[in-house]
Amino acid sequence: MPEPSSSLPVTPSDIDAAARVVARFAVRTPLLSSPVLDERVGTKVFLKAEMLQRTGSFKFRGAFNRLSAIPQDSHGGGVVAYSSGNHAQGVAAAAKILNMHATIVMPSDAPLSKRERTRGYGAEVVLYDRDRDNREAIAREIAGKRGATIVPPYDDPLVIAGQGTAGREIAEDMTRLGVTPDIVVAPASGGGLIAGVATAIKGRYPDVTMIVAEPESFDDHSRSLRLGAREAHHAAGRTICDALMASIPGEITFAINCKLLSHGVTASDAEVGAAVAFAYRELKLVVEPGGAVGLAALLAGRIDTRGKNVVIVLSGGNVDADLFAKLVA
Amino acid sequence: MPEPSSSLPVTPSDIDAAARVVARFAVRTPLLSSPVLDERVGTKVFLKAEMLQRTGSFKFRGAFNRLSAIPQDSHGGGVVAYSSGNHAQGVAAAAKILNMHATIVMPSDAPLSKRERTRGYGAEVVLYDRDRDNREAIAREIAGKRGATIVPPYDDPLVIAGQGTAGREIAEDMTRLGVTPDIVVAPASGGGLIAGVATAIKGRYPDVTMIVAEPESFDDHSRSLRLGAREAHHAAGRTICDALMASIPGEITFAINCKLLSHGVTASDAEVGAAVAFAYRELKLVVEPGGAVGLAALLAGRIDTRGKNVVIVLSGGNVDADLFAKLVA
Repeated sequence: MPEPSSSLPVTPSDIDAAARVVARFAVRTPLLSSPVLDERVGTKVFLKAEMLQRTGSFKFRGAFNRLSAIPQDSHGGGVVAYSSGNHAQGVAAAAKILNMHATIVMPSDAPLSKRERTRGYGAEVVLYDRDRDNREAIAREIAGKRGATIVPPYDDPLVIAGQGTAGREIAEDMTRLGVTPDIVVAPASGGGLIAGVATAIKGRYPDVTMIVAEPESFDDHSRSLRLGAREAHHAAGRTICDALMASIPGEITFAINCKLLSHGVTASDAEVGAAVAFAYRELKLVVEPGGAVGLAALLAGRIDTRGKNVVIVLSGGNVDADLFAKLVA
Repeated sequence: MPEPSSSLPVTPSDIDAAARVVARFAVRTPLLSSPVLDERVGTKVFLKAEMLQRTGSFKFRGAFNRLSAIPQDSHGGGVVAYSSGNHAQGVAAAAKILNMHATIVMPSDAPLSKRERTRGYGAEVVLYDRDRDNREAIAREIAGKRGATIVPPYDDPLVIAGQGTAGREIAEDMTRLGVTPDIVVAPASGGGLIAGVATAIKGRYPDVTMIVAEPESFDDHSRSLRLGAREAHHAAGRTICDALMASIPGEITFAINCKLLSHGVTASDAEVGAAVAFAYRELKLVVEPGGAVGLAALLAGRIDTRGKNVVIVLSGGNVDADLFAKLVA
């Protein structure tokens, strides 16, 4: 089974192509290990450190791959994206490199640091009310007026292929280390990261168990995997994982994920906070809550890791200083 | 000039030997790069991320190399060390792995996290008053009573060779990347880290400019390099760089450093604080003040980096959460 997903919307070859596109501008992030973490969970853990990626999360990969495919004669209209923050920064940074105008539709409750950093990359930020407004409609209106290209946060084959370059690097590094991964865990909001990572990893290691990590109650992927069809989560409130609040898996991402993922695990906000603090204290890494949910599930004992080589994707590190201080205190 | 320091107390071959000793237990830390940092300083910067080392600083390398050389029939007496915190943790962790008792003489004002982590590795901690007591005398007394081996924090060829393994990894990684380093910056307290790093780097890249970074006023290496002889700094108070408060370069370390280093740079506490905040916000790394002094000097424009490939050693990340929160706020 060298290429298990060749009939899916994104193939390992698409990720190889994306890797060539992003190579010049994306950071080749390291796969880290920590003796303290290994001792704590009693197995060998490898951490894909995507907070070290350009813009502080994996999102630059997909955004840059997608923007690079926009034909030259559409550059003038610029791009528009809707995002709670990390995709916003990825698109803004990619647009800046490619010399395009970027408009980002962001929820008004997005972390201040994410709004400021998005503006810092030169993007125009339009705020909306998460509970009242329809962000896709706002983005479509802007795109229509300006002739801008919409850059979806996850439900797009080029975005998924871009995120998959993180998985391709994991596979490369594990091969170089001579270690076969048994379990790979990544967080999901719309599911673009884990769809790309799963495509790349399963292409090289077909027997890997792919697990999606979600905040407690925001478990739409876990539910959908059990049901075999896309189902929204039932959460009404908020989670500290501001990056992981999409209500239902994407159509394209789920077409991939329902084939390649095994199941989901969740972590409570308290467990996520403990994982952020563990990463500060023991790993010396700044991980945002949404980026730490896989680590949180691991530390909470929710993944059967006995005798297994486990890879955890730490997907981002954009967290406001006041929340970070509270979590690590 | 393949081995410029073969007549010095520590040679590149000693570091090769140390690398074989520490390989099984030390973390092979990555050499990171950051587009934001490169843009900020206008050149290519490589960060040796020693906060990702076991115990959260480079000190494990030297401690493990030194303890591994203690003859089996002296293991029963255990080891004793004096340290403001990072060497303490390095020795405690190495002793635990080698199944030896460790007693650590620590200043009573050492960061709480460093005291707790030292105890966490199973070491016995004896506190002393930094202004009143003589820590070496306390250590000698304990060693005499128990038949323990004293593990000096820096003035020891095996400790220096152990720290040098960080430099050896830098040289390996730069070679792999096909980039020649022009400038390498590392902090110094007693000078063990930079002596080892300089020995390894100059062995591979004889033309590198080695720069020592120190807190403002705690500039004993800078002064000594200018004078050509060991001179104490004139600082009376404290610095937030708790790891870098030794008053005068070591004898053995300075015998090496006066041959291999170019000059020193300093950074104020405010500049160090800004560097810790920059590392949090843009690099997503937890760096302690003493570990950030080289980065601080770089960000403050105190190093002429135009057109140069610069390597900065970030030496540790053990910082109390309350101080960290204050610095990144």
